[in-house]
Amino acid sequence: MRTQVGIVGAGPAGLVLAHLLHLEGIESVILEARGRDYIRQRVRAGVCEHPTVELFRELGLATRMDAEGLVHEGLSLRFGGEDHRIPLTELTGKSIVVYGQQEIVKDLIDAHEARGQQIHYEVSDVSLSEIDTERPRISYRDSDGVSQVLECDVIAGCDGFHGISRPAIPAQQAFDREYPFSWLGVLAQTRPSDDELIYAHHERGFALHSMRSPEITRLYLQVPNGDRIESWSDDRIWSELDTRLAADGFSLIEGPILDKNIAPMRSFVVEPMRHGRLFLAGDSAHIVPATGAKGMNLAIADVLVLSRAVKELLLHKNPEPASAYSETCLRRVWRAEHFSWFMTTMLHIDPAADPFQRRLQVSQLQYTVSSHAAATSLAENYVGLPFG
Amino acid sequence: MRTQVGIVGAGPAGLVLAHLLHLEGIESVILEARGRDYIRQRVRAGVCEHPTVELFRELGLATRMDAEGLVHEGLSLRFGGEDHRIPLTELTGKSIVVYGQQEIVKDLIDAHEARGQQIHYEVSDVSLSEIDTERPRISYRDSDGVSQVLECDVIAGCDGFHGISRPAIPAQQAFDREYPFSWLGVLAQTRPSDDELIYAHHERGFALHSMRSPEITRLYLQVPNGDRIESWSDDRIWSELDTRLAADGFSLIEGPILDKNIAPMRSFVVEPMRHGRLFLAGDSAHIVPATGAKGMNLAIADVLVLSRAVKELLLHKNPEPASAYSETCLRRVWRAEHFSWFMTTMLHIDPAADPFQRRLQVSQLQYTVSSHAAATSLAENYVGLPFG
Repeated sequence: MRTQVGIVGAGPAGLVLAHLLHLEGIESVILEARGRDYIRQRVRAGVCEHPTVELFRELGLATRMDAEGLVHEGLSLRFGGEDHRIPLTELTGKSIVVYGQQEIVKDLIDAHEARGQQIHYEVSDVSLSEIDTERPRISYRDSDGVSQVLECDVIAGCDGFHGISRPAIPAQQAFDREYPFSWLGVLAQTRPSDDELIYAHHERGFALHSMRSPEITRLYLQVPNGDRIESWSDDRIWSELDTRLAADGFSLIEGPILDKNIAPMRSFVVEPMRHGRLFLAGDSAHIVPATGAKGMNLAIADVLVLSRAVKELLLHKNPEPASAYSETCLRRVWRAEHFSWFMTTMLHIDPAADPFQRRLQVSQLQYTVSSHAAATSLAENYVGLPFG
Repeated sequence: MRTQVGIVGAGPAGLVLAHLLHLEGIESVILEARGRDYIRQRVRAGVCEHPTVELFRELGLATRMDAEGLVHEGLSLRFGGEDHRIPLTELTGKSIVVYGQQEIVKDLIDAHEARGQQIHYEVSDVSLSEIDTERPRISYRDSDGVSQVLECDVIAGCDGFHGISRPAIPAQQAFDREYPFSWLGVLAQTRPSDDELIYAHHERGFALHSMRSPEITRLYLQVPNGDRIESWSDDRIWSELDTRLAADGFSLIEGPILDKNIAPMRSFVVEPMRHGRLFLAGDSAHIVPATGAKGMNLAIADVLVLSRAVKELLLHKNPEPASAYSETCLRRVWRAEHFSWFMTTMLHIDPAADPFQRRLQVSQLQYTVSSHAAATSLAENYVGLPFG
């Protein structure tokens, strides 16, 4: 089999890339390890930053996002039992849209199928070769177990943190930070307790009130690394959320818990993001702690840069943007890494923090909500700095 | 001997306090361990933030500052061999004045003496007692070695980090941070190489180009803790400064080195800053690393709050502002502590930093000089947030 761009992974990165390439008349094939139903339902990110929303509108992919997504013009920082609203739109002129990643994936798959393109699901034993040449190859076993080879001009590694693409790049430098806490995430069948996101700093740990839709609330609790989900009964979760999110005039609305799990918090970047004709995009190249809501948005920023580079490389025989791909992406990646680290360290309780650090944290929170400049700095990062 | 306010220490804090109290008709006596010539010449801080300058003008103490001080409307962040100017005045409407602390001390002593007040120099064996009562006492030996007792209504501990006032407060909590580097400070007899301050982040370590006057340059180099000044020849110092401050169009002007020394970098705060009738102000209660140029300014902010509290306490029998003194001061103290920590960690090379932290640092620098909001946030802290 032969295509121009072989895309490994049908997450937001791979699907948006296929769409962008299609608009340029460039052919691509997507290989995905999971099945169609699985990826259409898997719950992941929920915040689309402004440049992401704008891109989806430009691409004609925002019909359902605009109808069902929740436009947010502010968020709350809650500490010392008080609420401090950061008026995102007032400060930046921009807003964010809460719209689940799985909904975006559904919209993208529907568009993909509507133009007659197929995704090869349930592939296995994927491996990359000849990436130093102009004919890189993807070998894999299809869903029937038959060995296949996909010959490409370019391979896009959009297969996430645990994928096979990143290890195919030799001589990488990895930048890694594990945080001394994890997130317990809860999906609850109830309307949100507030219209907006609430980032709460509490002496018992961080908590986040969020939502996926007017009927589904998404909540998070900072928990120690190594905590097992079995030790968090629904009652204990609600009680802890109630304590950490407490503020005058706020009451937490409880409901049946549909799903709960514990995930570690990690920052990770690999450099470079390209080797020969293999380009990494999204989580395969970098991970951010979820506090800044940047993961999916960063993946989409990557493939926008990648689609332009591939267009220049394949249609105009201009290798410059492809050569600059890694450096171009990494500027935004490191900005998002810094912002995500900043939000994470400002809001969580580090069990190893000394009293000096704890006081700095409170001073930083107070300053952030009382200085127009500091609030604007947080806001402009949160709504998303312009795509390059 | 009897006075209303006994002031321990004739640094900027003690001298400004005496002046403020005098304007309210409150009598004070200053005790100082050093001699008159010593304190009029000791080289310390050099940057007066905007609220400090405004206060000195209001107090009629700014005649020489306005004539000889250097008004700065911007500063440079230099990294990657490039210069990035933060236009302080454009961003905040305010400026700073470079005017040596010893000049301020001279002006204050001259004003003190002009109104017929004396400072008791070269006192020793100072100790405080009865601070829980309304008649606290300072015992000391005068310059002739004669034991004296000063009975007061209020004691102001303005005797610096190594003074005797802080230890007199029981049940304190100390917040302490030592940094993994020191500053080698150089006073050179040459005109400055640039009109403005240059904060340089270089892989070999931080460097700062500053000045005290149009004829005296003040330069700093980050050096490892434990380095001895003997291992830094003048040639080595100039060569290292030249490397770290290098940028297109910049050349370092060398000159005779008048003084050089190495000082550790430390953050320190004690809470509370008051016990009974003893009030700490300035370095006796808190230390900041010099990177943010906040030390002297913070001392002056403290005594402004203190003078108001003492006025209410002694003239109007209203104890509220005195009771709130510690909390009122600590808000500004912690803001300055955070800003000083921020400037220090953004600009220095931490020998223990992992590659992830180093990349965050560069991203933060790039963001600070490219975002209007981030630059404004730095600028408003640097020029000084308004006195409360």
